[in-house]
This record gives sequence, C-alpha cells and structure tokens, in this order.
Amino acid sequence: MRAINLNGFGGPEVMRWSEAPDPVPGHGEVLIDVVAAGVNRADLLQRQGFYAPPAGASEIMGLECSGVVAEVGDGVRDWRVGDRVCALLSGGGYAERVVVPATQLLPVPEQLDLGAAAGLPEVAATVWSNLVMTAGLHAGQLVLIHGGGSGIGTHAIQVAVQRGARVAVTAGSAEKLQRCKELGATVLINYREDDFVAAVRAETSGAGGPGADIILDNMGAAYLARNVAALADHGHLVVIGMQGGVSGDLNLGALLSKWGTIHATNVRNRPTTGNHSKAEIVAAVRSQLWPLIIDGTIVPVIHAELPIAEAPDAHRLLDASDAFGKVTLRVRD
Amino acid sequence: MRAINLNGFGGPEVMRWSEAPDPVPGHGEVLIDVVAAGVNRADLLQRQGFYAPPAGASEIMGLECSGVVAEVGDGVRDWRVGDRVCALLSGGGYAERVVVPATQLLPVPEQLDLGAAAGLPEVAATVWSNLVMTAGLHAGQLVLIHGGGSGIGTHAIQVAVQRGARVAVTAGSAEKLQRCKELGATVLINYREDDFVAAVRAETSGAGGPGADIILDNMGAAYLARNVAALADHGHLVVIGMQGGVSGDLNLGALLSKWGTIHATNVRNRPTTGNHSKAEIVAAVRSQLWPLIIDGTIVPVIHAELPIAEAPDAHRLLDASDAFGKVTLRVRD
Repeated sequence: MRAINLNGFGGPEVMRWSEAPDPVPGHGEVLIDVVAAGVNRADLLQRQGFYAPPAGASEIMGLECSGVVAEVGDGVRDWRVGDRVCALLSGGGYAERVVVPATQLLPVPEQLDLGAAAGLPEVAATVWSNLVMTAGLHAGQLVLIHGGGSGIGTHAIQVAVQRGARVAVTAGSAEKLQRCKELGATVLINYREDDFVAAVRAETSGAGGPGADIILDNMGAAYLARNVAALADHGHLVVIGMQGGVSGDLNLGALLSKWGTIHATNVRNRPTTGNHSKAEIVAAVRSQLWPLIIDGTIVPVIHAELPIAEAPDAHRLLDASDAFGKVTLRVRD
Repeated sequence: MRAINLNGFGGPEVMRWSEAPDPVPGHGEVLIDVVAAGVNRADLLQRQGFYAPPAGASEIMGLECSGVVAEVGDGVRDWRVGDRVCALLSGGGYAERVVVPATQLLPVPEQLDLGAAAGLPEVAATVWSNLVMTAGLHAGQLVLIHGGGSGIGTHAIQVAVQRGARVAVTAGSAEKLQRCKELGATVLINYREDDFVAAVRAETSGAGGPGADIILDNMGAAYLARNVAALADHGHLVVIGMQGGVSGDLNLGALLSKWGTIHATNVRNRPTTGNHSKAEIVAAVRSQLWPLIIDGTIVPVIHAELPIAEAPDAHRLLDASDAFGKVTLRVRD
C-alpha cells in the first residue's frame, strides 16, 4: 500500500506519499480500507520528532480515519467486511490501509459522508472523555472552551450545548467567534482583544458562581494562572494541550480558595483495553454521544479536505491556525 | 462565658482565657456546653492574623469541639438538651459555649470519652471529604499520606486501611513511623532520610501502576513537583495544606503523561448547606464513617489534652511538630 512516510523529522516537506508495508489484522483487530484521515496537532509534533508513537503503534501518522472494513481478525464478531466505519487510532491513519482494535471502531450512519466522518473519532473521544467522563459536565454549568474554532473546539461547543451547559469560547477573530456562536456558544471572547478571565467571571450564572465550572484548555503553561483565576468554585480545569508551554507557576492558594481541580490528560497514550482505556472511551462515545451524531444533532465541522498527497499543505493549514474545524486528507474515493 | 480571646495577632502569648459574650442559637442551630476543643494548624494561622474566619463565623478560634447540647434553636428536631455530641465548627470552639448549625453535629457514642471526641470532627470531615468524596478512594489503591503522624494523618491512615487501600506515610522520625505502622501503614518513609518519590514508585501494586493512586498533601509548593512525580497513572494529588509554600512550578507535561489530577480544597470555608457544603460532608461522615467510630474500629489519636487556659502551650506543641495525633484543650470536666 501507499502511506505518508517521513524522510527524517522536520517541516511539512519531509512527508512523502510512498510505498509502505501492508498491515495485517491480528486477534481482535480489523483492517480498514481508508477513505479519509483526520489531521491533528499531535501529527505536527510527531512529524517534527517531538511526539513518539506509543509502544506497539504504527510509526505512520494519523490518529483517526474513516473507511470500509476490508478484513476482520480472529475473535471479531461485531464488524463485517463492507461496514462503513470511522476509528480512533494510535497511529497509521495517513495510509491506504490501517489495522485497529475492533473496540476502537464506530459505525458511520448512512446519511453521513465518509470523508466528513474521518474528522470525528479523535474529537469525539477527546471531548467526551474530558468534558463528561473526567470533568463531569452537566446541565446548568458554564463551560469555557479555549480555541473554540479548532476541531476539538467546534465539537466541544456542540456537546456542551447538548448537555444543557452554557458555552464560552475564545478565538482569534470575529469571524471565528461568529461561527462558534452559530454552533451554540453564547459568550464570545476575542483573545487578541479581551481578557478571558474578566469575561468569564462577568458571567455569574455558572453552577459554582462567577467563573467557568469547566475549562477545556489547549494552551498549558501560558494560560495556567489565568485559567485558575477564571474557574468558578469547585471548577475543573482540563488541560489537553500545551501550545503555550509545559511548565508554569501554579498558585495552590488560589486553587484552594475555590476548591478547584486541575486535570491533564490525553487519549493517544491510553491502553487499548481496561480502565481508562481507548475501548472504554469509545464505548461511552458510542452509547451516549453517537445517537446525536446519527440523528444529525451534532455535526462534523470540516474546514477543508485535501488529497492525501497534499498532506504537507494540510499541516501548514493547521499550523497557521486559520482553519475553522477539522482538516482532513482524502485517501480514496 | 469565658473564651480564648486574642490580645492582637502574634505568638501564642497573645491568647487570653477571659470573658466573652454568650452565643445565642438561632434557627436551625444548637448551643453546646463545650467539654473539649481540638487544636488545628489553621488556629495557629488565625492567631497570627493569616487566616480570617469566613464571613459570619465566630472570631474565636476553634474548628471542632465536643460537649453536651445545652439548648436547641427553632426548627431543630434531631437533637435534644443533654445529648453528647461533637461538632464541626467554622470557629468558636475555644470557649465554654459555642453555637453551631445542627447539620454539623455528630453523636458521641457511650463508650467514647467526650475529651477524645473533640479531636474527631475536623479530621473526619477533612479526611472523608478529600480521600473519599474528592479523590474516590477505593480498595486496592496505594495512598500516600504526608505527615502521617499529624491529627489528619493518623485518622487518614485508619480510614484508608478500612477502605482496603495500602498506606504509605511520610514522617520525621522512626518513632512516629512505628506508630503509623501500628495504625496500619505499611510503607514507612522518613522524609529526613529517604526520597518519598523513589519509595512510593518502588511500590508497584497501586491500581494505576507504580506510584501512589492518591496523595494527601499538607506541604503545597515544596512538594508539588515531587508529588506529581510520585503519582501513579490516573492518580489524584489532594492538597489540603501549604506548610511548604503557596506557589510552585507545575510541569503539566509530567501530569499529562500520567493523566493526573490535582485538587486543592479545605473544609472551613465551605458553605453551611447545599452542594459541597459542611452539611453534606458531615452527613456523609455520619452515614459512612461514623459506624466505624461507634464500633471502635477507627479511634481518635490524642497526643495530649491540656487545660484550655494553657492554649499557648498547646499551640507551641503543634508548632514544634512533635505531637503524634491531635492536641486538645479541656474546657470543663
């Protein structure tokens, strides 16, 4: 098969659409003929050599894909050849074929384009595991989503709204904020102009008083102190990205004064099965979130779909932070 | 009545056993004739002017007491004059009488000395709310308790053991560690000689792998980086004291690599009723922990009981960190 191979670590230009060994499904695994793959920021880090795949995972980039089941391994009962699926991957999505544990597959409903479905598994798993499973999102809360225009952000807005929460977002342009509003966000904060702490604390109807009951953060150290300041009483700060640095000063007294909690998590490095595993997250997504995907209440937001051979341009697009929603790569028609 | 009044903020010598206005129980409140009061580190901070009582609370020190119900206010149905009780207070325990919401009372069983019971409410509420309600303590986990010889520590060891957890403790002497062992701790770490990170990570049978599933911390900033390093996967660091400073560097990448959580909480400033309130904590303590107090499975550990007029010496004792367990003040026979 062909896949995106890396000619060393570096800029987008190191990516080559070229031959790679065909993967073979083992026990409990499924082989997918990939139709499209989602692009994630983690891919950009992996391409630069900053994010090694977890042990046992494919060296090929790509944390999610859509496609058609081509072969099922021993012990797989729930999936058949020809099923339209999308999948949460530990790697390997930038390829014509990928092997994945059957527990990481999700069905793609008839009315949903397979290309668009490629952008769902990673954001759905990330948003559901963090907002709902980790932070306990529920109706009446105020949720602050940093990077509201990102793939994660556009999905998180919809999930939070559907759970009955009020949503505040930060983004870097009026246009992005307007589109976040169309997805259901009601507190719109241009981080280039406005102080998100003041903006969120001005909202007094969070379940825990002024401030955000949950903050979903992709900035890490750069926002740490301000995120703590923006939390409501008993609020949860969930750090899922560190685009603003890894280490920062934490004022425990400030956190304690509001009985606050800080979580830092990811999905990729979780084990395949067991407690806190990818299988557990995907099962929760399928039973609780997927009905809203099937009925079209929550939609994939795709900024652009590029041919897989143009993966370098897709990475440049994500790196420029100009996209609204996901960027995907088309592998076959 | 008489109470410990402060002659300005400062050292132990500013405390005076002298006249104070009698408190009067309002709606839903109970007046207690105090038999004994527990001494807490928060009292030492309050005496120095570093810890103002929450709004509406007594200016008198004392976060817990035991005694006999002397009068019940309107609307109190569950308590009668003469009941032997202990109580979680927002302040006012260093006195002959104190008023407290009825929802913060706990019954003192026949066989338990009222003097000893004075040392229970604050540690029971703190340990139960943090280990069980916040961090989700359960059987099979490894729990690291810093300051195992403190009032909190000696109670936390017993609670964790009764919940089926394995307990690691830090303390500053072999004698204290031996006594922690008698309470059920099995991993004994002299913080003056041993590296607690290495000691805890050498224990490989925590539910989340090497490291502690839960860390109960009283040191704050000084231990922050090492506590994160000592956490097992999906571990919870619960900061309830900041004896080692308020602000410290947090490596979010290190926390994320183990999907870790940091909580910072206290009991004193919580509201009286509602979600996350003192009433909610005391109700949980009464229904789930108190049966183990009543049957003597979990015992109060009292280092010393001093006459209330000797409160300055009690504070010096706590400040010297020489006590094993609680220090209490006897107010009446």
